[in-house]
Amino acid sequence: MIKVSDVYSFIDSFAPYESQADFDNSGYMIGNKNADVKKIRVALDLTYDVLKEAKISGADLIVTHHPVIFQPLNSVMCNTVVFDTIKSGISVLCAHTNLDIAENGVNATLIETLGFKNYRNSEKDSFLKIAEIEPMQSDALVKLVSEKLGASVQFNSVRKEIKTVGFCSGAGSFCLYSAACEGADAFITGEAKYNMFIDADESDILLIAAGHFETEVVIVPVLADMLRKQFPAVEVIESKEKSPINHYIG
Amino acid sequence: MIKVSDVYSFIDSFAPYESQADFDNSGYMIGNKNADVKKIRVALDLTYDVLKEAKISGADLIVTHHPVIFQPLNSVMCNTVVFDTIKSGISVLCAHTNLDIAENGVNATLIETLGFKNYRNSEKDSFLKIAEIEPMQSDALVKLVSEKLGASVQFNSVRKEIKTVGFCSGAGSFCLYSAACEGADAFITGEAKYNMFIDADESDILLIAAGHFETEVVIVPVLADMLRKQFPAVEVIESKEKSPINHYIG
Amino acid sequence: MIKVSDVYSFIDSFAPYESQADFDNSGYMIGNKNADVKKIRVALDLTYDVLKEAKISGADLIVTHHPVIFQPLNSVMCNTVVFDTIKSGISVLCAHTNLDIAENGVNATLIETLGFKNYRNSEKDSFLKIAEIEPMQSDALVKLVSEKLGASVQFNSVRKEIKTVGFCSGAGSFCLYSAACEGADAFITGEAKYNMFIDADESDILLIAAGHFETEVVIVPVLADMLRKQFPAVEVIESKEKSPINHYIG
Amino acid sequence: MIKVSDVYSFIDSFAPYESQADFDNSGYMIGNKNADVKKIRVALDLTYDVLKEAKISGADLIVTHHPVIFQPLNSVMCNTVVFDTIKSGISVLCAHTNLDIAENGVNATLIETLGFKNYRNSEKDSFLKIAEIEPMQSDALVKLVSEKLGASVQFNSVRKEIKTVGFCSGAGSFCLYSAACEGADAFITGEAKYNMFIDADESDILLIAAGHFETEVVIVPVLADMLRKQFPAVEVIESKEKSPINHYIG
Amino acid sequence: MIKVSDVYSFIDSFAPYESQADFDNSGYMIGNKNADVKKIRVALDLTYDVLKEAKISGADLIVTHHPVIFQPLNSVMCNTVVFDTIKSGISVLCAHTNLDIAENGVNATLIETLGFKNYRNSEKDSFLKIAEIEPMQSDALVKLVSEKLGASVQFNSVRKEIKTVGFCSGAGSFCLYSAACEGADAFITGEAKYNMFIDADESDILLIAAGHFETEVVIVPVLADMLRKQFPAVEVIESKEKSPINHYIG
Amino acid sequence: MIKVSDVYSFIDSFAPYESQADFDNSGYMIGNKNADVKKIRVALDLTYDVLKEAKISGADLIVTHHPVIFQPLNSVMCNTVVFDTIKSGISVLCAHTNLDIAENGVNATLIETLGFKNYRNSEKDSFLKIAEIEPMQSDALVKLVSEKLGASVQFNSVRKEIKTVGFCSGAGSFCLYSAACEGADAFITGEAKYNMFIDADESDILLIAAGHFETEVVIVPVLADMLRKQFPAVEVIESKEKSPINHYIG
Repeated sequence: MIKVSDVYSFIDSFAPYESQADFDNSGYMIGNKNADVKKIRVALDLTYDVLKEAKISGADLIVTHHPVIFQPLNSVMCNTVVFDTIKSGISVLCAHTNLDIAENGVNATLIETLGFKNYRNSEKDSFLKIAEIEPMQSDALVKLVSEKLGASVQFNSVRKEIKTVGFCSGAGSFCLYSAACEGADAFITGEAKYNMFIDADESDILLIAAGHFETEVVIVPVLADMLRKQFPAVEVIESKEKSPINHYIG
Repeated sequence: MIKVSDVYSFIDSFAPYESQADFDNSGYMIGNKNADVKKIRVALDLTYDVLKEAKISGADLIVTHHPVIFQPLNSVMCNTVVFDTIKSGISVLCAHTNLDIAENGVNATLIETLGFKNYRNSEKDSFLKIAEIEPMQSDALVKLVSEKLGASVQFNSVRKEIKTVGFCSGAGSFCLYSAACEGADAFITGEAKYNMFIDADESDILLIAAGHFETEVVIVPVLADMLRKQFPAVEVIESKEKSPINHYIG
Repeated sequence: MIKVSDVYSFIDSFAPYESQADFDNSGYMIGNKNADVKKIRVALDLTYDVLKEAKISGADLIVTHHPVIFQPLNSVMCNTVVFDTIKSGISVLCAHTNLDIAENGVNATLIETLGFKNYRNSEKDSFLKIAEIEPMQSDALVKLVSEKLGASVQFNSVRKEIKTVGFCSGAGSFCLYSAACEGADAFITGEAKYNMFIDADESDILLIAAGHFETEVVIVPVLADMLRKQFPAVEVIESKEKSPINHYIG
Repeated sequence: MIKVSDVYSFIDSFAPYESQADFDNSGYMIGNKNADVKKIRVALDLTYDVLKEAKISGADLIVTHHPVIFQPLNSVMCNTVVFDTIKSGISVLCAHTNLDIAENGVNATLIETLGFKNYRNSEKDSFLKIAEIEPMQSDALVKLVSEKLGASVQFNSVRKEIKTVGFCSGAGSFCLYSAACEGADAFITGEAKYNMFIDADESDILLIAAGHFETEVVIVPVLADMLRKQFPAVEVIESKEKSPINHYIG
Repeated sequence: MIKVSDVYSFIDSFAPYESQADFDNSGYMIGNKNADVKKIRVALDLTYDVLKEAKISGADLIVTHHPVIFQPLNSVMCNTVVFDTIKSGISVLCAHTNLDIAENGVNATLIETLGFKNYRNSEKDSFLKIAEIEPMQSDALVKLVSEKLGASVQFNSVRKEIKTVGFCSGAGSFCLYSAACEGADAFITGEAKYNMFIDADESDILLIAAGHFETEVVIVPVLADMLRKQFPAVEVIESKEKSPINHYIG
Repeated sequence: MIKVSDVYSFIDSFAPYESQADFDNSGYMIGNKNADVKKIRVALDLTYDVLKEAKISGADLIVTHHPVIFQPLNSVMCNTVVFDTIKSGISVLCAHTNLDIAENGVNATLIETLGFKNYRNSEKDSFLKIAEIEPMQSDALVKLVSEKLGASVQFNSVRKEIKTVGFCSGAGSFCLYSAACEGADAFITGEAKYNMFIDADESDILLIAAGHFETEVVIVPVLADMLRKQFPAVEVIESKEKSPINHYIG
């Protein structure tokens, strides 16, 4: 019988937990390393909705990208998803920054979803990848990103022909400066603070923030497929998540 | 003749520079404390567009909310707005967090722009204000914020009747937890990272991020009017800024 | 019906949580602030034995001196007392350093259990109390402490007449130097590292380490009585704890 | 003639001073590197008793395990062993954590004194060694440790068959978790704080604290012998120390 | 009989040890608080020359301005003045930054030695005093300082009429900026690094570095007199120090 | 046409910018990396005098040893050399600690100017070099240094025959202890604080402080020559600097 620790070891084989960032908390989150696993839910986040789905489907294990415990806990009180998950008896594993930077990980999947190839790892930052693309105008790139990801996107005021693009899925705007140093005409990430759009204008680089959720949720089916292939006897289900952020267009 | 230092002293009288946050850099930015001031531009940010306007209009002084030098400078190279402003001979003053928390400052102006009264300062955080409002449903509040500010807004999934609201203009999402402790049903700020929307769902509080620019630009005419009244001999012009963030709706 | 939060508030009234040390984690640990409380267990530590007793007796709440979560948690795995307590549905409160220093708190109870009166708070350290006692020889004081607490005690090599004694229950040996500054001839605490016995020899002060458990467990009946008087409708039971440290005499 | 620096160099050859822990202060303590050495006292600690013995015997050099200056000194006042040693004209060397971890150092000597062989260095912590032993019950191991070291020992409540044992002499309880990770059934050290016994119970590992003094004093004759062999012309005497901790059994 | 501790208490009465800077180590340095004091040497520094004088004259106590132990000691080896002083049996007290800022302390004595009156404490820095002087040219001030102190002085290139002067004896150049803020035309200190002379040029303030030794040694007779008056039965002798810095004029 | 970036690259080839100390700010300071360069001024510091010379001579680029921006800037106000340089349109590069330690850098040039050969890099500190010299008395060495550099020098009281000398140009006195460890009889640097002369006396090492300016200005003609050889089409002029420190001999 497959154990939770077998799933941990499999993830460790292609996205080593030792490669996680210093600030991260990837790994075992909740439950029992030795529990039997017959059914896995894969999700971006362990929200109440995801937990509810998992309970209904009878899952033994939830594998998420984001750590449900990120800030270490001083207490475990009711009306928190951690408390309710413990009571449910379901185990939880997460693979966060180790999966972001893995060869077929989150950032790589984002780039492939957008239809780009021939990308390489930046030498400046392990979270940054760089692709040379068929030249296109900035407006066309904004439209392409929005359509491929089904996302409302934010972008700055630079208008130019784009040949070199930097990528960092999720909250990756800290890579903007490294991308500029590597000669990128555009930088695509999930979310960026206000001042980054002004800095990008000054640096003459197109900044596209396509949604933390939308740039990362693409990993869920990829990870689910890998688990299915590795553990054919286990049922692996992708959670039907929607972004926790709603938009009202003013 | 009015000097740059007179404008500094006037701002200091209602938004004391000593009250600025530790991380802030409010005060003199560029130029000459003793320069004569006949024409002032007021703006949220010192961008190239704002500088260009100021040059064309012949301004002696630009007063901004955000410090154009925030991260201290290790060099001053061309193709930066700091370099070009120095060459222009225009002086620059900023009033950032000291203006955020002033009695008639940015946060107060935001609340009044939204049509709320009877707000008070939080005891938990000097950047947070709390208002008791006429009860309304969460959807109505989202719509009201969007319409009053002319903003596309992001919000989480909590749906409830709203009676108590917390406010922090700009990048104020760090006040979410203090607002929840003070019993707020909703919290309105400028921008918030992805995980804050999930935390707000778990804390059962409506989080509305109405735009860093849109929640703060409301201070520009207010500050311009105060300067006009104090210095009738000086021409005070509000910059015609637009947000550095554009939206493409997917 | 009494709630967990009522018990918290009562403890806060005589041992304010705000007075806890910076390194401490006193307060709500596990469960539900709003849960009804009909039966309370009081204990020094939340061990498996204490949890088992609490489950058998049908307790709703366990109040402990030591925080069961001291080092913040990065995960909550099975085979830990935190995990099993969450699954049990029992709530947990703790009162640690705030209770140590309270007027009728742990340190004061220790002094009274030893039969000393006329003690005062040190001005050097809030964890230290000083008593003037009837002069006795050091050997007599060692014997008295051992007998009153039923404890095997460790002590250094100073032999002298003792008139002034410092006290800090538990892991209080950091107060040795403050006690010496206040003119103490002897200092009584729960446990002390090896080098403290050498330092005490050099400082010519008698150091008695009478057991972390034995110098603190005296608070359990005192706290139980206070809870009984405050909440007559609640059944309050003292856990039958024994020290986690066993001795084999070589 | 042998110099103090020759003794330093000899110790450095098998317990390199560069290998000492960051927090340590091993090396020259007091006196004269170039002084002639005809008589050495070897001791665990430089106490007044050890100094007195050294003076009476006419020693030129005292070699200790523990640094007599550990917390750097802001003053050197009388009624301290440092002051009196300086006045005595005797030089002092110490070899602390560099000797703990040396091949034939303190920890290795402890293990051999207990009668165990086939130990190895842990990969988790340089202060930890691991031995596979002939399986025995926990009570038997407690008795064996107490008898071999002539020590009163403290131990927790785990009862099980012991096959794998971790060792760290002195104040080594920080290695408990590493020992558990390496599969140890028991961990033997000198002293441990109260909460470590509770943690050991939760981790299902037998914790034996056999005395800081008793687990380390075994190095004194070993070190003395090494010095005798290396410097046949020098008289090397082992101090007749007793533990600074006395026990009164309650 | 006067004790060392009586001298400490007297100094504490006009230059409280609690007022010393965080980085300082003023107070008891070496010896015995309870030793009898019949003869005191007063000096700026405890050098070998000062120690030799003290031994020859049969002093019981040396009072210095600079702490002979400033960087805490990890060892006490021979061929250091600390070691030799301990062996001499003489006690040592120091009064450093507490004496710098005392009402009749080092800085005040410097100002009076230079012939200035009507000085006040700066509000910006407790080490800085400000005096309004009879206007004089910068060259005249340089000459005056050199002649009054018998010092070779270093100064920058500012030439102007001087009305307001800042003072900080010793290594006080960190006060240059505060002095400039308080409107000083000149700032006099003991020593300053190279870049401070360039900064002073840019700030249009005359910087005079008149010697660490020369700006502080003026306190020696003042302190000696205070001790003589307070302790008439004690012989108080001023050390005949010369600066440890020699000059070769190129 | 030669660009500013070509000059940067040339300096980087023999004094790599990556080798600069953590505290340093060597590199581009002001202006335009892509500006054409026909005329270069080389100077130790960018003072007003140096800027004035550069303007008069029509220089495009100033290369200095010391960074004109060392403490990062929170504002750029008039009456500062940074402000005026920006307005002048001249670019500025600096090469500080990377040039100090380069093979033919500042420290090496100092040693050669003094007439010493056969020097080596210290293993203790990258800023320190050591030379074995023809034995001479300390007084002769002081005289030699003063005469070769045309400097007024400060020195301590050690008098001995000098065979081994340590060197660190500029503010290098932190290398005194490393020099002593390497067996130096004398240590030559630019400037040293008062207490270093006392420490040098105690360590029996001759300390010579020959002027920050005088020990470093020797690099200016060397660097100018290298630039002339590399860029024959560019006019390279050495600034006629004098030390910002004047001396009045008391």
